[in-house]
Amino acid sequence: MSDNLHIEETIKSEKIYEGRIIKVRVDTVELENRSYAKREIVEHDRGVGIVAINENKEIYLIKQFRKPVEKVIYEIPAGLVEANENLVDAAVREAQEEIGYKPNNMKLIAEAYASPGFTDEIISIFLGTDLVYDKLDLDETEFLEPFKVPLKKAVEMVENFEIVDAKSIIGILYAAREFGI
Amino acid sequence: MSDNLHIEETIKSEKIYEGRIIKVRVDTVELENRSYAKREIVEHDRGVGIVAINENKEIYLIKQFRKPVEKVIYEIPAGLVEANENLVDAAVREAQEEIGYKPNNMKLIAEAYASPGFTDEIISIFLGTDLVYDKLDLDETEFLEPFKVPLKKAVEMVENFEIVDAKSIIGILYAAREFGI
Repeated sequence: MSDNLHIEETIKSEKIYEGRIIKVRVDTVELENRSYAKREIVEHDRGVGIVAINENKEIYLIKQFRKPVEKVIYEIPAGLVEANENLVDAAVREAQEEIGYKPNNMKLIAEAYASPGFTDEIISIFLGTDLVYDKLDLDETEFLEPFKVPLKKAVEMVENFEIVDAKSIIGILYAAREFGI
Repeated sequence: MSDNLHIEETIKSEKIYEGRIIKVRVDTVELENRSYAKREIVEHDRGVGIVAINENKEIYLIKQFRKPVEKVIYEIPAGLVEANENLVDAAVREAQEEIGYKPNNMKLIAEAYASPGFTDEIISIFLGTDLVYDKLDLDETEFLEPFKVPLKKAVEMVENFEIVDAKSIIGILYAAREFGI
């Protein structure tokens, strides 16, 4: 394969929407064959997710209603990175807020673009070990139910399509490799 | 955990944008504590992705420029499901169009919401085996470079952050489990 794939130069960029979580724009780009194309792009802040695992090889999941999919689904603790916050601090904070535990050891296991065909959202996924209990600290408007499950059972939940969240599947499959499960 | 997590009822729904690939709306919802909140939602068609693996345990990747992330990245063959097309047919079609091979055996390995906090996009990921060469069939405006790589090497590319696309990471980690790599 060549290393000089064409970069799509922006000819025009139209702002569509500026919200709290997302911004939407439509770029007109020039293709390799000199024709033009439109790209609908959703800008989204960086996210972090964390597989927090205890000494019994149990991980913590969150049960949460997600409006865009109109379902209650299972996810690993996760959230957006705040201004001036580094990725590790953000992931530790989310773990503490959502499950009440702070990991003393953090390892970055994956960086994943959620859907690079239409959004720039990237999520950094950590494995957190040596968990120390702090306290649950949910926002007043966050209605979550954290619970723990053996990593082996979490892998089965992926295989049975009970866990259907991309970042959570990545974290669980990676942790399974790491712990030989 | 209880099984009666609050469902956020829609009080108002405002259409923001209707594009070719995405639709954007803002829903006002009622929370468990009776307060209201806004949900910015991007509607997106269903997607499919496929880990196509040959008898030498090599898989096919696509090298492609992605405007939203302004980068050339590696992905498994993938695309949107067309009207009146089932998921398996869509995944087989994408494999044939993008890498030139049609799998005779298809196994659904994961269903993944790309980022359920803001979009309903769900991608169905398949493992395709018993590959038969047909022909490459790229759209005139698709500039992709397919190539093959041992599954073992693809796993290393995930671990080294060279593969940073969520659906591809899921497919590769799952295939690694399946083939004991």
